[in-house]
Amino acid sequence: MNVASRADRLRDRLGDLGVDALVLSAPADVRHVTGFSGEGWVVLAPHTVLVTDGRYTLRAQREAPEVEIEVRTGPITEPIARRLSEHGAKRVGFQADHLTVSQRDLLQQGLTGVELVPLKTVLREARMIKDREELKRLGRAIAATDEAFVRVAQLARPGLTEKELALEVERQLLLAGGDKLSFDTIVASGPNAADPHAEPTGRKLRARDIVKLDFGAQVAGYHADLTRTIFLGEPTRKQRKIYQIVLEAQRAAIDAVHPGMAAKDLDKVARDVIAEAGYGDRFGHGLGHGVGLEVHEGPGVSQTSEDTLAVGMTITIEPGIYLPRWGGVRIEDIVLITEDGCQVLTKAPKWAFAT
Amino acid sequence: MNVASRADRLRDRLGDLGVDALVLSAPADVRHVTGFSGEGWVVLAPHTVLVTDGRYTLRAQREAPEVEIEVRTGPITEPIARRLSEHGAKRVGFQADHLTVSQRDLLQQGLTGVELVPLKTVLREARMIKDREELKRLGRAIAATDEAFVRVAQLARPGLTEKELALEVERQLLLAGGDKLSFDTIVASGPNAADPHAEPTGRKLRARDIVKLDFGAQVAGYHADLTRTIFLGEPTRKQRKIYQIVLEAQRAAIDAVHPGMAAKDLDKVARDVIAEAGYGDRFGHGLGHGVGLEVHEGPGVSQTSEDTLAVGMTITIEPGIYLPRWGGVRIEDIVLITEDGCQVLTKAPKWAFAT
Repeated sequence: MNVASRADRLRDRLGDLGVDALVLSAPADVRHVTGFSGEGWVVLAPHTVLVTDGRYTLRAQREAPEVEIEVRTGPITEPIARRLSEHGAKRVGFQADHLTVSQRDLLQQGLTGVELVPLKTVLREARMIKDREELKRLGRAIAATDEAFVRVAQLARPGLTEKELALEVERQLLLAGGDKLSFDTIVASGPNAADPHAEPTGRKLRARDIVKLDFGAQVAGYHADLTRTIFLGEPTRKQRKIYQIVLEAQRAAIDAVHPGMAAKDLDKVARDVIAEAGYGDRFGHGLGHGVGLEVHEGPGVSQTSEDTLAVGMTITIEPGIYLPRWGGVRIEDIVLITEDGCQVLTKAPKWAFAT
Repeated sequence: MNVASRADRLRDRLGDLGVDALVLSAPADVRHVTGFSGEGWVVLAPHTVLVTDGRYTLRAQREAPEVEIEVRTGPITEPIARRLSEHGAKRVGFQADHLTVSQRDLLQQGLTGVELVPLKTVLREARMIKDREELKRLGRAIAATDEAFVRVAQLARPGLTEKELALEVERQLLLAGGDKLSFDTIVASGPNAADPHAEPTGRKLRARDIVKLDFGAQVAGYHADLTRTIFLGEPTRKQRKIYQIVLEAQRAAIDAVHPGMAAKDLDKVARDVIAEAGYGDRFGHGLGHGVGLEVHEGPGVSQTSEDTLAVGMTITIEPGIYLPRWGGVRIEDIVLITEDGCQVLTKAPKWAFAT
């Protein structure tokens, strides 16, 4: 599906959304319907106009050739309000999860006799199901990330600091074809690995350390996300035990996943394995999340998710166990939901006990 | 000034703000008053509580030891509303420029008999004036950035792609002591330099190219921001001419800046130089911006700014000229406003015509 037909499909949904025009401001949604990766908003009234500023004029022309582009000089709400008024819009949907209270108020000031309708999830569902072009881009991001892991795993050794290893991860991600990073790289070693979202420090890796690596490349706007936990040298019995529990939890989830399954039930499959092993209170986050134009997007895969899994969704499966002062283990792959269950898109080896 | 006294000072302002409690949600503001760099909100009711989630428990304890920490499991608005109710708050200020419409509505749902008061710039003014500790951190970020430039300028050569050079910039930023990048690195060569905010591409640098580099390191939360434009080989007459106009515009602004000056008048000093040279319509952005816990913060330094410059502010001065298809030149330094005028904090050489 090309970008223009995404805007068409959204236009066809205006009636269902109960509005006669729409303002998109969330960057990933703007990119989804126009291809534009800079800062700007889209008004669909119902003619599509992309409003950006002088920093992005050339990029907008290059990335969104099929869309009318307006380059603003004042506040972005001005041209947006003008376009809406010109089209005689009366009920205008906006993205309540993205627009700030100030932006909404400013937009309303420019509009008389127009009702602004807060919408929650304009494109969340549409973006959850990936088309062929999106899978190709995500696949390239995953391939670059997998390749970077193979190189980095061979370089990790006692004496390197977490920051130095993170730098090497990021270098390899870009050398392997990533346009940019999906998110700030996590390299957490020894006791630091007990923090699920640690930032790399100056701590030097030591023999017998746990090293948890969470990183990913972005390609053409699509985000890979990979976690591997490796051990420097022969693992201790406890390291091996915790790793095996997490690995078993992940395998159980990958085996169980299928279209039609409630996402929270998938979370439960992995959580049960960890709980039965006695670490239920040490898995303090959801099992996974959708990935695509955002590194975290729908569906949610957690105990509180209300999403149902469907063919074409791409989600992470990433159970973990975190023990204060000791460290932590997380293993994460991206899978594509298929008719039969899933295809594991991540090909990075699970080299936990290398060297 | 330490972090706790910043919260105290804010607490003393609650009356002036017309509220009896405050919710801070903007990340840089949360960091300013607590030291915490992860995701979380602060309620000042007036006792300070930082609400975060399980991903950041350890980091919050480490970075914000003086503050009460609550680790949420459900939506963040729940504990925030509970704390406000417990303290009997009646008028609660929130950050209208940061909170989304959905978050405000959710917060309001949890509060009965409480008025939520939209505030615009709770900490903008306080954060504009840097204290000694902040200047030390910013200084370290700038020093790392300057050092990276010196190394990168010596490495730039025909044959390298923009992406490869950007990667080298980022490697050098981290090796020179940066904790992370301030923003995505810009390396724009040849005609790509006509785009003020280009992303690095696979284009190979060529002899006689313009190469515009815009990058910076973050240290302890403080952001450096540096632009240099260099030429590969002997510059053409036009390259030299455009560069000299931009350099003269920057020097004029650095000479003119002083406390008590309207920021828009400073913008005009540089803009006039460029306009008199005949390129007034080719300088399509503001002259600069404050830098600190955010790479763009108050004061604004543009034609529409209403800020007045004051001792202790740190701002960028970055005029530019951009000519479609030809390329562009921008030169950017960070200056500290002093009693006498300013101190140029950036020490990176202006090596435009190297090799």
